[in-house]
Amino acid sequence: MGRGQDLYLHAKQLIPGGTELLSKRPEMFLPDGWPAYYSRCKGARIWDLDGREYLDFATMGVGACVLGYADDEVDAAVIECIRNGSMSSLNAVEEVTLAERLVAIHPWADMARFSKTGGEACAIAVRIARAASGRSRVAFCGYHGWHDWYLSANIGDSSNLDGQLLPGLDPAGVPRELKDTAVPFFYNDLASLEALTSRFGDIGVIIMEPVRGHIPEPGFLEGVREIATRIGAVLIFDEVTSGFRVNFGGVHLTLGVEPDVAVFGKALGNGYPISAVIGRAPVMDAAQTSFISSTFWTERIGYVAALATLEKTERLDVPAHLVAAGRRIKAAWRSGAHAAGLDVHISGLDALSHIDLRGDDPLAAGTLFTQAMLDRGFLAGASAYSTLAYDDEVLDAYAEAAAGSFAAVADAAASDGGVRGALRGGVRHAGFKRLA
Amino acid sequence: MGRGQDLYLHAKQLIPGGTELLSKRPEMFLPDGWPAYYSRCKGARIWDLDGREYLDFATMGVGACVLGYADDEVDAAVIECIRNGSMSSLNAVEEVTLAERLVAIHPWADMARFSKTGGEACAIAVRIARAASGRSRVAFCGYHGWHDWYLSANIGDSSNLDGQLLPGLDPAGVPRELKDTAVPFFYNDLASLEALTSRFGDIGVIIMEPVRGHIPEPGFLEGVREIATRIGAVLIFDEVTSGFRVNFGGVHLTLGVEPDVAVFGKALGNGYPISAVIGRAPVMDAAQTSFISSTFWTERIGYVAALATLEKTERLDVPAHLVAAGRRIKAAWRSGAHAAGLDVHISGLDALSHIDLRGDDPLAAGTLFTQAMLDRGFLAGASAYSTLAYDDEVLDAYAEAAAGSFAAVADAAASDGGVRGALRGGVRHAGFKRLA
Repeated sequence: MGRGQDLYLHAKQLIPGGTELLSKRPEMFLPDGWPAYYSRCKGARIWDLDGREYLDFATMGVGACVLGYADDEVDAAVIECIRNGSMSSLNAVEEVTLAERLVAIHPWADMARFSKTGGEACAIAVRIARAASGRSRVAFCGYHGWHDWYLSANIGDSSNLDGQLLPGLDPAGVPRELKDTAVPFFYNDLASLEALTSRFGDIGVIIMEPVRGHIPEPGFLEGVREIATRIGAVLIFDEVTSGFRVNFGGVHLTLGVEPDVAVFGKALGNGYPISAVIGRAPVMDAAQTSFISSTFWTERIGYVAALATLEKTERLDVPAHLVAAGRRIKAAWRSGAHAAGLDVHISGLDALSHIDLRGDDPLAAGTLFTQAMLDRGFLAGASAYSTLAYDDEVLDAYAEAAAGSFAAVADAAASDGGVRGALRGGVRHAGFKRLA
Repeated sequence: MGRGQDLYLHAKQLIPGGTELLSKRPEMFLPDGWPAYYSRCKGARIWDLDGREYLDFATMGVGACVLGYADDEVDAAVIECIRNGSMSSLNAVEEVTLAERLVAIHPWADMARFSKTGGEACAIAVRIARAASGRSRVAFCGYHGWHDWYLSANIGDSSNLDGQLLPGLDPAGVPRELKDTAVPFFYNDLASLEALTSRFGDIGVIIMEPVRGHIPEPGFLEGVREIATRIGAVLIFDEVTSGFRVNFGGVHLTLGVEPDVAVFGKALGNGYPISAVIGRAPVMDAAQTSFISSTFWTERIGYVAALATLEKTERLDVPAHLVAAGRRIKAAWRSGAHAAGLDVHISGLDALSHIDLRGDDPLAAGTLFTQAMLDRGFLAGASAYSTLAYDDEVLDAYAEAAAGSFAAVADAAASDGGVRGALRGGVRHAGFKRLA
């Protein structure tokens, strides 16, 4: 075991759950073997605590670092901001500039609010939407963070969230009084939303990820929009994951359906914490009737980083690169798995590709793929977030390593010990669970 | 009007409420006259959009910048972190180091979780405490942010929060289902907490600011501790404002009463967003049963900034300086107001001093004091957060300007037009209200 795993064992004694984010738990990738911590990163490269270098095809900062790690242009703007003072008693000019920029990119929107994390921004959006509609009940589809309003969906039926993104989300500590205030519907299943509107006459908010694993079937998003308008609900598109990744702005701009509110995070600041809620003036104005206020939302770095990231993203048409790189990743998966005779299922946006290995023991097979990729100098899991830092050389190296790793999985599956016999540690976790 | 006020008029069209933080609304200081935005800040100095320089005795970054703006040592650590990559797919070593450091400073605590803002950290603390106690109901005292769990106190009785910090906090958009899940008690009034425990047999969490405007009367905090233990409630001290300001660590360390959980923010990172929840292992372990996870909580800058800030804070005994500077501010208020014949009420921690002008039109008098200070090159409101950057020269200049400004207020009060006649704009707001 490397120094990263040693530190992680220590961390689990100090930090309940080991990390601040489920998607950075080593157990989600390679229990007992994942490097866990980094010392340095640049472009698509990352160095662990033992000085070993990897190419990152895991999450590129959980999808935040679309320009690559430590981007020179964004960092130069941030460092200048730090030298001029990143926090004061007065407001940052860049906050207004970013509001202008986001509203200009999304012509249907008039106003913006900002925060530091995606979960916070979704909670702000739901607060504003509830205030605007005057109704508590939220119909949701997809993943929207850790806050009470969302996790309350699992009160009474702890499987309500299982079909959305992560299974096993436990709502312990969420007031039971919130039972049925957030009710789920399902992607590409307009009837599931219709059923909710029949069961509950007081839905005030509909929040969904416009795209995640799937492309919307014709009429689905349009149908959601019609229902929201018909019942007088505020429609929120959560674009924390999808925004500025496949096109310049929210993915809804390419789908032709406009929400009343949209939420951004992740890719917005290339790894610097910043999240945004934009919306139509009549809805956003309801924020004036509710106390929504936090000291660190005013800090300047997030705004400066977002403006620099947007400028570079637009100038270089970064989303086009992310999509093209993602297609090559998917092609590498297809050809590598085919050559090894492995059954795989590939899904997701091109810029956020996902692969599931199939067969008798799919989770173990996925874990072994990660182990084999790590041995070849790559961080890799079931999802790959594209980055501008994936150039031809990096993508070719990835394809070669993936082909070798698929072959290693196939060899192990055909051996006496099977896939599990080839694992040096445990099988990775599929969702949220208590750590031992 | 300067460029800052011009920009603010524009901002109000783009950002509902104008800013992300009530305490940075120009209307809270000097309507129509406050500089509103900054271009640069350093030490205790801040420059507005017209290049005018001020000494900041307003909030020093709403209490965050205890070392002064753009502190060279903290910034050097942060810039090195940026050059090495501040976000990646792996975890930051400094997250574990900060957990170790905070637990070592607070020997009763065993574990830590982190987030980016104070409101988030309070929401995490309440989530964990509810999960640990298995009960929803929270008794609270003081100000704890914008989240649903807290604002729900004003459902049904919109004055429940008025006595806590800010009057007028509207809970629009907070589900009515949460009515009575958060119930208020009052500082130095143990009977008010006893009354809650009699009325509600199921209080699972008690959260309070251990000190804010007042020093605890003998036995008050001890009594709260005893009640919490007796009823099996988790006791949370919200030290977002009080922590690392009057002593190295939570102020509870000097008061001899230990909570089960403590929350830190503001001063922890000298202006870089970072907040922390620390607690005893049996309570913190409940975090493992609840999904509490956010991408940007893992970002590295906050941890690096906090470690550098703690190191400097301890090495230079910054809290001692903050207290001494605050005493000089209070002395300047007393002598200046006395010389001018003004009736004032001075309160608050020495490191977070507060002044209320009295008389027939106290809010207008306070506004005129701010206007007179601005004319003398000072940002000043009703509260003054101390900073290490207040040296003898700065404090002497402040005392002189304050004396002159008190005299100006007294002269206006004695004139035909009165205090309002001397104001070039409106009277400042006392709390949360809709902006025109």
